[in-house]
Amino acid sequence: MTLTPAIDPERFLADLRKLRTFGAEGTGVVRPSLSEIDLHARRWLAERFTEAGLDASIDGVGNVFGRSPNPGPALLTGSHSDTQPTGGWLDGAYGVIAGLEAARALLTEPTTSHLAVDVVAWVDEESTYASCLGSRSYCGVIEASEIADAVGPDGRTLIEAWADAGLDGRPAELEPDRHIGYLEAHIEQGANLEREDDRIGVVTAIVGYRNLRVEFVGQQNHAGTTPMALRRDAGRAMIAFASRIDEVFQELRGERTVWTIGQLSVHPGAPSIIPGRAELNLQFRDPEAERLQAMEASVPEVAAAVAEATGVEIRAASTGRAIDPAAMDPTFQEHLGRAAEAAASGRWVAMPSAAVHDAMFLAEVMPAAMLFVPSIGGISHDFAEDTADDDLVLGAQTLALAAASILDASSG
Amino acid sequence: MTLTPAIDPERFLADLRKLRTFGAEGTGVVRPSLSEIDLHARRWLAERFTEAGLDASIDGVGNVFGRSPNPGPALLTGSHSDTQPTGGWLDGAYGVIAGLEAARALLTEPTTSHLAVDVVAWVDEESTYASCLGSRSYCGVIEASEIADAVGPDGRTLIEAWADAGLDGRPAELEPDRHIGYLEAHIEQGANLEREDDRIGVVTAIVGYRNLRVEFVGQQNHAGTTPMALRRDAGRAMIAFASRIDEVFQELRGERTVWTIGQLSVHPGAPSIIPGRAELNLQFRDPEAERLQAMEASVPEVAAAVAEATGVEIRAASTGRAIDPAAMDPTFQEHLGRAAEAAASGRWVAMPSAAVHDAMFLAEVMPAAMLFVPSIGGISHDFAEDTADDDLVLGAQTLALAAASILDASSG
Repeated sequence: MTLTPAIDPERFLADLRKLRTFGAEGTGVVRPSLSEIDLHARRWLAERFTEAGLDASIDGVGNVFGRSPNPGPALLTGSHSDTQPTGGWLDGAYGVIAGLEAARALLTEPTTSHLAVDVVAWVDEESTYASCLGSRSYCGVIEASEIADAVGPDGRTLIEAWADAGLDGRPAELEPDRHIGYLEAHIEQGANLEREDDRIGVVTAIVGYRNLRVEFVGQQNHAGTTPMALRRDAGRAMIAFASRIDEVFQELRGERTVWTIGQLSVHPGAPSIIPGRAELNLQFRDPEAERLQAMEASVPEVAAAVAEATGVEIRAASTGRAIDPAAMDPTFQEHLGRAAEAAASGRWVAMPSAAVHDAMFLAEVMPAAMLFVPSIGGISHDFAEDTADDDLVLGAQTLALAAASILDASSG
Repeated sequence: MTLTPAIDPERFLADLRKLRTFGAEGTGVVRPSLSEIDLHARRWLAERFTEAGLDASIDGVGNVFGRSPNPGPALLTGSHSDTQPTGGWLDGAYGVIAGLEAARALLTEPTTSHLAVDVVAWVDEESTYASCLGSRSYCGVIEASEIADAVGPDGRTLIEAWADAGLDGRPAELEPDRHIGYLEAHIEQGANLEREDDRIGVVTAIVGYRNLRVEFVGQQNHAGTTPMALRRDAGRAMIAFASRIDEVFQELRGERTVWTIGQLSVHPGAPSIIPGRAELNLQFRDPEAERLQAMEASVPEVAAAVAEATGVEIRAASTGRAIDPAAMDPTFQEHLGRAAEAAASGRWVAMPSAAVHDAMFLAEVMPAAMLFVPSIGGISHDFAEDTADDDLVLGAQTLALAAASILDASSG
């Protein structure tokens, strides 16, 4: 039997637009985690969850839950409701309201009203204090020291921000006996769906990444009087390293590999002074753990060769923890694929996620999967972020169909 | 007839050490142009010139002259008496006191007491307000707009600094009927003499240089979701440009060619953001004008190729004026070579100057030449700058011998 809960597009879009008003600035939204406006939005979400017949609560870290009145097995779905410092209106918000709408759709439809969909709005995915703070806290994959050290851009510590919000810093507990998995709808934040004229992406894996800080220590000197042969130019070594890494990564790359040097500097940074020190940040991402490891392994090899050639000392060190790719649950992907085919026949695609999501951490404690809707022009983390209404609705409908299908299979 | 004026090593070193006390900080000196301590040192120099039997004056830009009582033809000799913000004790000061000592030596020795050596202490070679301000003003090779726009690190304009010092901004006038040329003694500021165990360098030419600012304009984007093929990464283009320039310059280089990227940056400069803009400063120096031109001509070619390959717009523009190499007068070089051979037989060498000096601008209006003494460890523009006493004395003696020889040849 195929269950076909139907979402209410008007209700869904109205709630999505209402959430946008919390922190709206022009076409964008400024709703950083644990700010007054973010907390205001979280209380509104809790009210809206209650109105939908869910049992609403805000845990001690700021996550908002809407628990189905039905007994388990239950599916957890949602995303984050905080934004970037100058964020778009859909990043995170879309998955929260799509999750709410899916829960409402299943409760409304007689053939699915017995199924349990729990909704969640995670706190601080966008790293106002700590990246994916809410989902990592819930999943128990965050170090106490990271929480103790976290400071927001306004100088408040995370501990102070929680205290100001009346939160005690204790996340809700995992319920392995209730939750059979996690689904998250999100905007793509890239242009792959738009370019291929697809309407739904079923995420196969969330790419892992590495962030390396590479330091170059040479000898500062006069740029006129120091012959080339006697130089230990940290900047020149950095350029040689970056250029060689680019060549090596071209050889190692897969279809989805990306790498970026987003930061670099030389010291002291004067036209007539040979840099004595330099540093850069090298980040690379890939859906395959093996490729990430091969890329990471190449860094000290390149560094050693450049150090040998230039006489400049080179040190490379990871910053933060290595994030391995998170495979999405294959069975959930099948359910999502069938739902996408039902909602958008022939216009959906299986694809990895190039960006980090809360689902990455949920996948460490339960089966998890994601679906994407197109981002207009691929733009995200920007006031211009947007998605066509039809695509927003289609994604929410797909989420509801897949949730019903997963829960039905689980109870069947 | 070979004239052999003898300098007084004790008197010479005592004056050099006395000048060091004006602004001394540890082993270094802080005596920026037109500061109170610099003006104090200039008044002391004028007194010392007077005590040496010279007619002392300070012109309207701050240059201190000590004019020989003898009629011309006269030789002008000296250097600058200002220092870098945290300078060494010999850079400039050495040539001023060596010039004074040469003048005294010739006046004292009966066979040379009729010869005219005029001494000068130029103002602001070190660019507190404008590089080589004193010598360029004297030689008439500075634009009025550069003077009008000059501002010191303390925020005072040059015009204000002159007014505070009671100076009217008018340089002394050139005296083509009196001055047959200019000689400058200076520390090498490099390690060539020390490395070859030479004691005197006879400068063949002062290297010219170019300073180019190169801007890269691409498209800022998300470092996770933007595939490599769709990127226009300004930082990656900058690295490709810098790497290729290094290869091209390796091919074009001569024995004395140097090039330096002393400044570079990417914007906005975050690990997860593809740089939308980048810029670097490329400086290169060479004693040969043709090579400088060839290097400069290669820049737009490399820029065009990298722009084509990366889709990043690249703009290269000169900053400041192009400084062509200044050849030192061949006849003066011969006199200096003979003097060096007399003072340090077999331990002198002909060599270009890799650094800019006041002599570069004097060479535009009269025959000019320079001699170098070794810098310990090649260190300069640093508190650690130093030269062995014996070398300091040998350089001053060589200067006195060469001055006598040039003047004798001129009057003979």
